[in-house]
Amino acid sequence: MEVSNKQVILRDYVVSGIPKESDFELRTSKIRLNVPEGSKSVLVKNLYLSCDPYMRGRMRNATDSYIASFTPGSPIYGYGVSRVVDSGHPNFKKGDFVWGSTGWEEYSLIIEPETLFKIEHTDVPLSYYTGILGMPGMTAYAGFYEVGSPKEGEYVFVSAASGAVGQLVGQFAKLKNCYVVGTAGSKEKVDLLKNKFGFDEAFNYKEEHDLDKALKRCLPDGIDIYFENVGGKMLDAVLLNMRLHGRIPVCGMISQYNLEEPEGARNLFCLITKRLRMEGFLVVDYYSMYPKYLDMVLPLIREGKITYVEDIAEGLENAPKALIGLFSGRNIGKQVVLVARE
Amino acid sequence: MEVSNKQVILRDYVVSGIPKESDFELRTSKIRLNVPEGSKSVLVKNLYLSCDPYMRGRMRNATDSYIASFTPGSPIYGYGVSRVVDSGHPNFKKGDFVWGSTGWEEYSLIIEPETLFKIEHTDVPLSYYTGILGMPGMTAYAGFYEVGSPKEGEYVFVSAASGAVGQLVGQFAKLKNCYVVGTAGSKEKVDLLKNKFGFDEAFNYKEEHDLDKALKRCLPDGIDIYFENVGGKMLDAVLLNMRLHGRIPVCGMISQYNLEEPEGARNLFCLITKRLRMEGFLVVDYYSMYPKYLDMVLPLIREGKITYVEDIAEGLENAPKALIGLFSGRNIGKQVVLVARE
Repeated sequence: MEVSNKQVILRDYVVSGIPKESDFELRTSKIRLNVPEGSKSVLVKNLYLSCDPYMRGRMRNATDSYIASFTPGSPIYGYGVSRVVDSGHPNFKKGDFVWGSTGWEEYSLIIEPETLFKIEHTDVPLSYYTGILGMPGMTAYAGFYEVGSPKEGEYVFVSAASGAVGQLVGQFAKLKNCYVVGTAGSKEKVDLLKNKFGFDEAFNYKEEHDLDKALKRCLPDGIDIYFENVGGKMLDAVLLNMRLHGRIPVCGMISQYNLEEPEGARNLFCLITKRLRMEGFLVVDYYSMYPKYLDMVLPLIREGKITYVEDIAEGLENAPKALIGLFSGRNIGKQVVLVARE
Repeated sequence: MEVSNKQVILRDYVVSGIPKESDFELRTSKIRLNVPEGSKSVLVKNLYLSCDPYMRGRMRNATDSYIASFTPGSPIYGYGVSRVVDSGHPNFKKGDFVWGSTGWEEYSLIIEPETLFKIEHTDVPLSYYTGILGMPGMTAYAGFYEVGSPKEGEYVFVSAASGAVGQLVGQFAKLKNCYVVGTAGSKEKVDLLKNKFGFDEAFNYKEEHDLDKALKRCLPDGIDIYFENVGGKMLDAVLLNMRLHGRIPVCGMISQYNLEEPEGARNLFCLITKRLRMEGFLVVDYYSMYPKYLDMVLPLIREGKITYVEDIAEGLENAPKALIGLFSGRNIGKQVVLVARE
């Protein structure tokens, strides 16, 4: 059986600047809803697609990047939640829900289904597996607990704090009895941080002329853990405000992704004087901890002890706009694209 | 008994640029060779003074620095080796040799002698206690073993590699069966690295137009540990050449100390993609390990398994020039000032 398959295509590499809708096109191709005879592939129907900042790097022709670039003229891909339509793999059967890397299209043939996670718990929204129960959740968990080594009562600062990862880091830090301050790019997001996610304090970085002063106002005693999502000027201001033996888990640097040449961090000498540890990490190194993470986070979700905000765009035709919106901070909470409900 | 006391005075703060000899003056004052009645001070005769890059920071009027600034119009101070002339402290008696913080002058009254280390082993040159057996030795030891977490066979790169700390890091790394490459600023120093300290490879950074290329030539498989002494452009080039899960113990950033505004590090995104750990440290946090360090290093010195090169300037009147020379790389090996032989 062959059906039509709407796809989001990258027209060409985007060297610098915020990607535009015209960098993408929608195309409708055809796909057979069976896996090839004898193959171990899985054919899935995509339900939710995840918009993540790291995808910007894949729009460049980066030969030496840690992840492959998208192919101009082909559909882009990323994390998503899907339903198995046909399977040649013993671990998956028709009707299973899965999350993992999939195409930005209605149906995808997954050649390496070993990379997929089977979804065992469906009493929570399926879309959560693009966020709190998926890659961003594991990112927040590994970055905060494993890389950040938090101690009770420490001072924690989170940038891009209302985003998929930031909102979770803030709440994990509160569960650890830390004092938590976040920054985001609008009044609405700052309100969310303070009133919904329980941050102790928050500020809108777009309204602060002097980030160093803003940090000193909100964290007069300094910062033990800076969960780094943005890089650039914020990092430089934070370095001046770190406490002795502070830690900086480096998760992302979204402020730099669209620049031709990144800004330089000038205050690295603080690493020495304050004996700071700055450590980059990638979530893929921590996926073996996923079952442990689920054991922790599922009860918190069910008992309402953790809050999770999504920004859901409806329809593949709105996917490019949703993805691009990440880089101007248009989204409020985790940006998801709803492709199909089931 | 009062004697004359030659002193090196800082005339005024040096905001930026390499300090000049005219920033200092020699003055002769008087000092009594007894500690005040009832005081726990120690009066010492200074034998060797240590010239260290961190001293540049003390020439600025830095109110929020990790160490106090020098006082214009007063003698500067730093690490040195001294002989006790009179003591009010139970731990020290006349004739003891000590190392620790002392003044740049012939005789000093040490108000807090608890900070001094008593020298127990005098079968090695006393001047070594300004270097391999003192603060720089402990710096190399703590930075390489404790912060760097080296493993057998790893690729190690050291900047300012012929300096007091660098020459030791390179040799510690060879003792750990690592492949070790160093960089320094002259042909003579590069020869020293390869022929005296046993580095596997070395290059003169002043003769390389493209540091990234130089690193790829000497370390085609990349770098597991970068022992950071210089900062600036070298750090940026190194970041591009680090291996997955590499470590960067940050000991110093001498290339930045004389700049009004530090250069920015632009390649920090590599921290994420390569999962790097960059960690600053100060030797003072590790002094409790000093006895353990001596147990390791004294036999190595006595058995000739470790080499140590000093550049000794004779006389207090040559001290400012020796100190300043650090910042143009004039010294070959550890820069020491000989004040008196005994």
